[in-house]
Amino acid sequence: MLQSKLFYKTLKKPPKNIKALSHILLTRAGFIDQASVGSFSFLPLGFRVLRKIENIVREEMEAIAGQEILMPALVSKDNWQKTERWQTFDALFKLKGAGNKEYALNPTHEEIISPLAAKYVFSYKDLPFYLFQIQTKFRNELRAKSGILRTREFLMKDLYSFHASEKDLDNYYEKIGEVYSKIFKRCGIFAFRTLALGGTFSDYSHEYQAVSESGEDTIYVCQKCSFAINKEIKNKFKKCPNCKSFDFRQEKSIEVANIFKLGTKYSLPFDLKFKNKDGKEKPVVMGCYGLGLSRLMGAVVEINNDKKGIIWPEEITPFDIHLIAIGKIKKEAEKIYDDLQKNRFEVLYDDRRDISAGEKLAEADLIGISKRIIISERTLKEKSVEIKNRKEKNIRLLKIKSIKLEINNKC
Amino acid sequence: MLQSKLFYKTLKKPPKNIKALSHILLTRAGFIDQASVGSFSFLPLGFRVLRKIENIVREEMEAIAGQEILMPALVSKDNWQKTERWQTFDALFKLKGAGNKEYALNPTHEEIISPLAAKYVFSYKDLPFYLFQIQTKFRNELRAKSGILRTREFLMKDLYSFHASEKDLDNYYEKIGEVYSKIFKRCGIFAFRTLALGGTFSDYSHEYQAVSESGEDTIYVCQKCSFAINKEIKNKFKKCPNCKSFDFRQEKSIEVANIFKLGTKYSLPFDLKFKNKDGKEKPVVMGCYGLGLSRLMGAVVEINNDKKGIIWPEEITPFDIHLIAIGKIKKEAEKIYDDLQKNRFEVLYDDRRDISAGEKLAEADLIGISKRIIISERTLKEKSVEIKNRKEKNIRLLKIKSIKLEINNKC
Repeated sequence: MLQSKLFYKTLKKPPKNIKALSHILLTRAGFIDQASVGSFSFLPLGFRVLRKIENIVREEMEAIAGQEILMPALVSKDNWQKTERWQTFDALFKLKGAGNKEYALNPTHEEIISPLAAKYVFSYKDLPFYLFQIQTKFRNELRAKSGILRTREFLMKDLYSFHASEKDLDNYYEKIGEVYSKIFKRCGIFAFRTLALGGTFSDYSHEYQAVSESGEDTIYVCQKCSFAINKEIKNKFKKCPNCKSFDFRQEKSIEVANIFKLGTKYSLPFDLKFKNKDGKEKPVVMGCYGLGLSRLMGAVVEINNDKKGIIWPEEITPFDIHLIAIGKIKKEAEKIYDDLQKNRFEVLYDDRRDISAGEKLAEADLIGISKRIIISERTLKEKSVEIKNRKEKNIRLLKIKSIKLEINNKC
Repeated sequence: MLQSKLFYKTLKKPPKNIKALSHILLTRAGFIDQASVGSFSFLPLGFRVLRKIENIVREEMEAIAGQEILMPALVSKDNWQKTERWQTFDALFKLKGAGNKEYALNPTHEEIISPLAAKYVFSYKDLPFYLFQIQTKFRNELRAKSGILRTREFLMKDLYSFHASEKDLDNYYEKIGEVYSKIFKRCGIFAFRTLALGGTFSDYSHEYQAVSESGEDTIYVCQKCSFAINKEIKNKFKKCPNCKSFDFRQEKSIEVANIFKLGTKYSLPFDLKFKNKDGKEKPVVMGCYGLGLSRLMGAVVEINNDKKGIIWPEEITPFDIHLIAIGKIKKEAEKIYDDLQKNRFEVLYDDRRDISAGEKLAEADLIGISKRIIISERTLKEKSVEIKNRKEKNIRLLKIKSIKLEINNKC
C-alpha cells in the first residue's frame, strides 16, 4: 500500500476530552474514528489489526473443533422473554419495529443458540459440539468510555459448547483456558485467569484480565503463585485458594474475556435435551466463552506503546513492514517495495515526497508497524537499507540483497 | 471436515409455510436457520458460502483501490437529523437507550461516512479515494419474506467513492459496473444492469437484477440488445434508450446490488469539501455502491439448483470436494481425505457408517458441493474412485493416484 494513498491522517496532539491511552494513540495514529459517543469506525489501519486478531481467534477456535456460524443481532423479544432476561438484563437494547413488534439487540446469544441447538440435538451421539461466531454485539451502556475499551457496539467472539455431562464440560472448560492464553500471547499481551462471580449454575466463572491503568476492573494477584481474584469476590478469600498465601497485590485491569459454565440454565427453558445411552432424556450441559476482539485491540495498545506511539506485536501489526523512502531514490525504493510484495509481505510504503525525514519517522513511530526499513541516498551508497524493529532501539544496516532472507529468518 | 462431526441436519421435507425455493433448499440442506421472522442464523455450511462470497467481493473491491473499513451499526440520531432522513427514511430502526438517548440502526452509511471523510479531506490532492465495508445492515421491514432474500438484518458491502469532479465520479461509476458483473459471474449468476429511479442528484441509478421467479422486482429487458429497465420507470420509455427497439420482455427479478451517483447530496450537509488547485473550496462529489451478500447467496440458490437440491458454483461451494465413503473402506478413504487436505483442498468427508449409500448420495445432491468423489469396495478393485461434478450427469472412474492432478487441472 502506498502511504500517499492510504486513508488516514495522524494528529500531533490528542483530541480534547479523551483520556485512555489507547483511545488517544489509536485516534492520533489514524486507526479509529469516533462516529458518535460509544461507537467507532475502524479506519483502514485499524481494520487491518482487527482482522488479524479475528484470524488468530478463528484459527484457535478451529483448533479446538469450533465450528463457525453467524447468528443475528436483532431478534424478536420472544426468546428473551423465555429466560426472563427481557426484564432482568439491564444493558439490553430494546426496540419497536413496524407493526409495533418488539425486538432485542443481542448483547449475548444464549437465547438464540439454545433453541437453535435444540433443533439439531437428539441423541448422545450428537454431543459434544462447539459453535462459535465473531459478531457485533450491542450493550445499552449508561457510560461508554475509554475509546474502544467500553462501547455500545463491539466485535466479540462467542463460543458455546454442548455436552452430555458436567465432566465433559469441565474438561473443555479447562482446554479453553489454555487456548485463551495462547490467543493473548499471540496478540502480544498477558491476561490473568481470574476467579470471578459465577452465574446461577456454578459458584464461579473466570475472567481474563490484562493489567492496565486504563482498566475499569480491580483484581487481586497472589504475590506467591499469581493466582488472581476479582475484587467483587475478594472478600470471600482471606488467603490464596491455590497456595494459601495471604500476600496479594492489587492491580487495575481490563477484562478481555470471560468463560462461564452455564450448565442447564439455558437448555431447560429451550427444551434442549438428548437421549442418553439408556434412552433417557437429559438436558444438555452448556458452557459459554466470550472474547472481546475490539476491546482486546484496545488492551494491546494500552500495554504495547512508548512515548513515541504504538508498538504493534508482530502477529497483529497492520503491515509486516513499513518501508520508508528518504530523498531522491524512488526507483530503488520501488524495486524493494515490489520485491517485498512479490514475496507476500504486507508493506506500507511511505512514498510521499513533500514530507521531511523527521516527520516520516515520527509518524512511523506513532503508527507502530513492527518492522521498519529505511532507504536513503546514504544507505544506497552502501547498497544497503536500515532495518529496525519498532520495539528495539537497535538500527542495523542490511545489504539490499539480504533483505528477503533476513526478514524470513527473523520474523 | 468429518461429516459425522459437522453441525447440520438435512430435512426430507421442506418446513411448512415457506415458499421461496432458496429458503426451502437452504433450510432443508442445513445452511440456514430462522432465528425469528426475518432474521437468520448461518450454520457452518451456510457460513462457509457467505465467507467465500465475502472474499470474492473483498478481492474485487481491493482491485479497484477500495480500502476496507468498518463503521458502526448503531449511532446517535444526530447525523440522521442532519440530512432529515431521521424523519423521511421509512425503514429506519429507531431506538432509545440509557438516559433516553435516541439511536438509529444504520440501513446505509452515507450519514456516517460523510462526516468521517470530512475529517480527512482538505485538498484536491486527497481525492479521489474509495472506502468500503462488509457489514451488517438493518431495515425495519413491514414484511420480511423469502428467507434470506428479504430480511430485517443482512450482510452488505457498501462502497463509497469521493471525487473532485462529476467527470471523475462518472468514470469510476462505469468501472464499478464491470466489477459487479465480474463478482456475479464468479458467484455463478448473471445480473442485468438495470436502469432505475435516481435520487435527488441524478435522474437515474442502476440496479443489478438477477432473473428469478422468487424475485420481488419486475424488469423489462429489450429483446434486441438486452438493455434492462425497472418497471418503476418503464412508463418513461416507449422504446429502448439504447437500440430504439419497441420489443421488451418482462421478467421477475431479485435486486442484488444498486449503484447511485450521490453527487453533493451528502457532502453539503456534512461540510465535506476540498480546496481545488485554485485554492477555492468545493463540495466533494460522491458515489455509493451497494451489494447484498446474504441476498446474493439466496439469489445464487434460486438460480443454481435442480430437483435434487442446490448446485453450488465452484468459487463459492462450501467445500471444494465432497468425499463419500461407501462400505468397509475406511482406511483407503481416510488416506484420500488426508492427501486432499494436505494439498489444501477443503474436503467434507462423509465418514458416517450407519447411513446407506442411497441416503448419502441424496444428501450430497441436496447440499450441492460442486465436486464429488465416491470411494467404494467396487471402485477400489480398480484402484479408482468415482468423480462427478454436481452440475453434470457424467460420472467417471479415476485412478486414485491421479486424483490430485485431475482436480488441480480441472477445477
